[in-house]
Amino acid sequence: MTKTIDLNADMGESFGPWPMGNDAALLKIVSSANIACGFHAGDPSTMARTMDLALAAGVALGAHPGFADLQGFGRRRITLSGAELTHMIQYQLGAAMALAQARGARLAHFKLHGALSNMACEDLEMATTCYRAALAVQPDLRLVVMPETALAQAATDLGAAWAAEVFADRTYADDGTLTDRNRPDAMIHDPAVAAARIVAMLRDGAITTTGGKRLPTRIDTICVHGDGAEALAIAGQLAAALADAGIRIAAPTA
Amino acid sequence: MTKTIDLNADMGESFGPWPMGNDAALLKIVSSANIACGFHAGDPSTMARTMDLALAAGVALGAHPGFADLQGFGRRRITLSGAELTHMIQYQLGAAMALAQARGARLAHFKLHGALSNMACEDLEMATTCYRAALAVQPDLRLVVMPETALAQAATDLGAAWAAEVFADRTYADDGTLTDRNRPDAMIHDPAVAAARIVAMLRDGAITTTGGKRLPTRIDTICVHGDGAEALAIAGQLAAALADAGIRIAAPTA
Amino acid sequence: MTKTIDLNADMGESFGPWPMGNDAALLKIVSSANIACGFHAGDPSTMARTMDLALAAGVALGAHPGFADLQGFGRRRITLSGAELTHMIQYQLGAAMALAQARGARLAHFKLHGALSNMACEDLEMATTCYRAALAVQPDLRLVVMPETALAQAATDLGAAWAAEVFADRTYADDGTLTDRNRPDAMIHDPAVAAARIVAMLRDGAITTTGGKRLPTRIDTICVHGDGAEALAIAGQLAAALADAGIRIAAPTA
Amino acid sequence: MTKTIDLNADMGESFGPWPMGNDAALLKIVSSANIACGFHAGDPSTMARTMDLALAAGVALGAHPGFADLQGFGRRRITLSGAELTHMIQYQLGAAMALAQARGARLAHFKLHGALSNMACEDLEMATTCYRAALAVQPDLRLVVMPETALAQAATDLGAAWAAEVFADRTYADDGTLTDRNRPDAMIHDPAVAAARIVAMLRDGAITTTGGKRLPTRIDTICVHGDGAEALAIAGQLAAALADAGIRIAAPTA
Repeated sequence: MTKTIDLNADMGESFGPWPMGNDAALLKIVSSANIACGFHAGDPSTMARTMDLALAAGVALGAHPGFADLQGFGRRRITLSGAELTHMIQYQLGAAMALAQARGARLAHFKLHGALSNMACEDLEMATTCYRAALAVQPDLRLVVMPETALAQAATDLGAAWAAEVFADRTYADDGTLTDRNRPDAMIHDPAVAAARIVAMLRDGAITTTGGKRLPTRIDTICVHGDGAEALAIAGQLAAALADAGIRIAAPTA
Repeated sequence: MTKTIDLNADMGESFGPWPMGNDAALLKIVSSANIACGFHAGDPSTMARTMDLALAAGVALGAHPGFADLQGFGRRRITLSGAELTHMIQYQLGAAMALAQARGARLAHFKLHGALSNMACEDLEMATTCYRAALAVQPDLRLVVMPETALAQAATDLGAAWAAEVFADRTYADDGTLTDRNRPDAMIHDPAVAAARIVAMLRDGAITTTGGKRLPTRIDTICVHGDGAEALAIAGQLAAALADAGIRIAAPTA
Repeated sequence: MTKTIDLNADMGESFGPWPMGNDAALLKIVSSANIACGFHAGDPSTMARTMDLALAAGVALGAHPGFADLQGFGRRRITLSGAELTHMIQYQLGAAMALAQARGARLAHFKLHGALSNMACEDLEMATTCYRAALAVQPDLRLVVMPETALAQAATDLGAAWAAEVFADRTYADDGTLTDRNRPDAMIHDPAVAAARIVAMLRDGAITTTGGKRLPTRIDTICVHGDGAEALAIAGQLAAALADAGIRIAAPTA
Repeated sequence: MTKTIDLNADMGESFGPWPMGNDAALLKIVSSANIACGFHAGDPSTMARTMDLALAAGVALGAHPGFADLQGFGRRRITLSGAELTHMIQYQLGAAMALAQARGARLAHFKLHGALSNMACEDLEMATTCYRAALAVQPDLRLVVMPETALAQAATDLGAAWAAEVFADRTYADDGTLTDRNRPDAMIHDPAVAAARIVAMLRDGAITTTGGKRLPTRIDTICVHGDGAEALAIAGQLAAALADAGIRIAAPTA
């Protein structure tokens, strides 16, 4: 029996005349595309074009909503009420569903973006609100969560399908959280190191920390990036290492 | 057998802190609510609240997309490519569908707003693009069209379900077009006159023109407005006159 | 010698088709108008119209910038870097200056709006950044500050001209802060009470607290509101009470 | 006496996380920078950074306002009233003036962007409205106009300082208008050809047309672009050719 793993990447982050990322190259590698939904990036035509590319590449589509903040790319923290959160998530999700439906496709997964994700990671009520909003629209969406956070708790509490995500280019502290971006060892720059580390994590079923610990956890999907030559090299080398290890890259199936 | 007619009104045109219209009062009268979809009016929470009110009143929900132009309320003409039109309509429609789905409801109809509608009225290619975009997402949407325009032609060509609309408070020239707003007789201000005129139109199956002509046409829905005491009085008096004439107000059923 | 006091009010908070407030009525009462600058309310044409009305009424113009957040009316907290704060304040201030300049006028004062003000009240670095940004563009702007907050401290530190503001319709706790809005005694609803309280404060040179204390402080300007009949009644009754007390309403002069 | 010519380029067209153009490279070549003002491109922080770069390079600053249309990059035609045009131009101009003022600088010129420019080129009333709006805020702004259009007429009628602009990479039809972009000969791709053509135009004081005509006209400034290797090569080769011809690149002085 072949083991499989999902590779996901944020996509469709262009806006109007401004390109971003290298979606075409990433789509040759990943199995799941997180499509920006117009509030922090990705106008309707960018969303449509990105979906066309992903579908042509056989890559699964997901909604990737964020705060209404183009200038800040959804990375600014904004305080919203629970009702506002609910409606703005359903709005963005529905927009993505309709663009998928117009091309005969269906969304498979759902992943929060930027500050919206960071805030919900730390706040169970907020995480629950966001996920409940999404599931009220499409109950079988697979929620992409970071293990050991409020996101994972909320997804579990709601009885939803979810996928535990680790990052190919970020290191983990001994408590399982991501190493603070201000520390010099927060990012992994060497594609070979990144690839070997992920293969080891999958073999062990555990997150490897900067302190050398192995924290047992479920791992369903690996997040890779496409911005810059280094990020793309990491994604490519990871794909090769997975192939060497006999692990097939594929989106989860229901 | 009781004859029925649909009464439709634009709703959910508030935005953030700014209220607009008198949705609560109108919802006691009309049978179909055209919900603004966030681009020219109606933020996600306004959309959700308006749908809640409409559903509580037993009023059918429809999507009412417009140009991305809050300051101009969607009344400024903006040139978009066919692809841009397609995607921005599917985006807005999907957003409305998701908010409806989250409350266990489903959209029944689709009506273009403002300059988007005016431009498509005059341009068969644009009308066809807009309607094809909507139907690709939800094929059974009933398209609300103005008779004898490119909208009606496009709806017919596409084999879609459609509803022919007349305006309760606007007069018609002898060629069936709306009297230019700059002319003194463009608007009907007297609720009794407006109500009697519509009842006569329904009895005759014809539009009555300012020149006294009767232009035979299909009439499925009457558009009423809620902005200002006069508009609301017209809606109320029309409802009473329809009751007197034995015509029941109801949304079309498939 | 006649004693004078400034009355200020937020104005120009309409946006596109959506009116807000009762600027025409307030302009008969107040001496300083805080003009919304387009990010949280007030499109360019609303700004221009509001300035025309204020100038016709002999009311001083001020810039009232806020966060880029129309839906939330600038009341949502948003985290910005110091550079982002600086540039977005200079952008809004410059826009207001140009519209004033086009009508032969000049801005007299500067007041932060909503969450931007609330956050800067609590954060000396943020307050200093905001004020330094404004003064770099127009050094003689009078900064409207709430006494005993970081705003007052920043204005003092920068050696700027400033005006200490009290609210006509809000009560103060014994420590000089505004009573929390969730408490039943946070707002003053009775115009007679509000007017008498302000006159007493001006007579005493002290803020009167809910606990009955008198906190000596400088008072240069009274903030009144125009949204709703009650707010307008408070403004009107305050103006009458000031006249009875021999206190003239006038904007500060350099 | 050394002859001089101005070279201008659009700049600051990034937005939030999305870079555009190659401002740093262009600033080594040109003498005037047209700064996007936030409506079609260029958020406040991008404007500030671009001004810093331009000032460090000794390049003159100008405002480059456009329609409120980020997704369309200001290239969509939008119908506005004269009052709306006036206020939105003054708003953008003032924002740019304030950011310049905060760095001890002053705007030298003013150039309309995209569809706003194209529409005003064909419409004297619109051109006059736009220029009158700008001059009401800063009367000594030099207006950058295309010769033989409504822009040139309006600038002349208003008695304003203006600069006649030719494009380094666009060809001209025999009637002096730009060759339609759909024609294969609309653009000049060969840097050597572009450079030689401009030097000839300056020597002759005439526009050279695709039909071989020489249309005598005033030429004060050459518009170059920085998007893509070809555009930058044209700018660089033009600068070299001007140096060879003994023509100094410099912004106009009052």
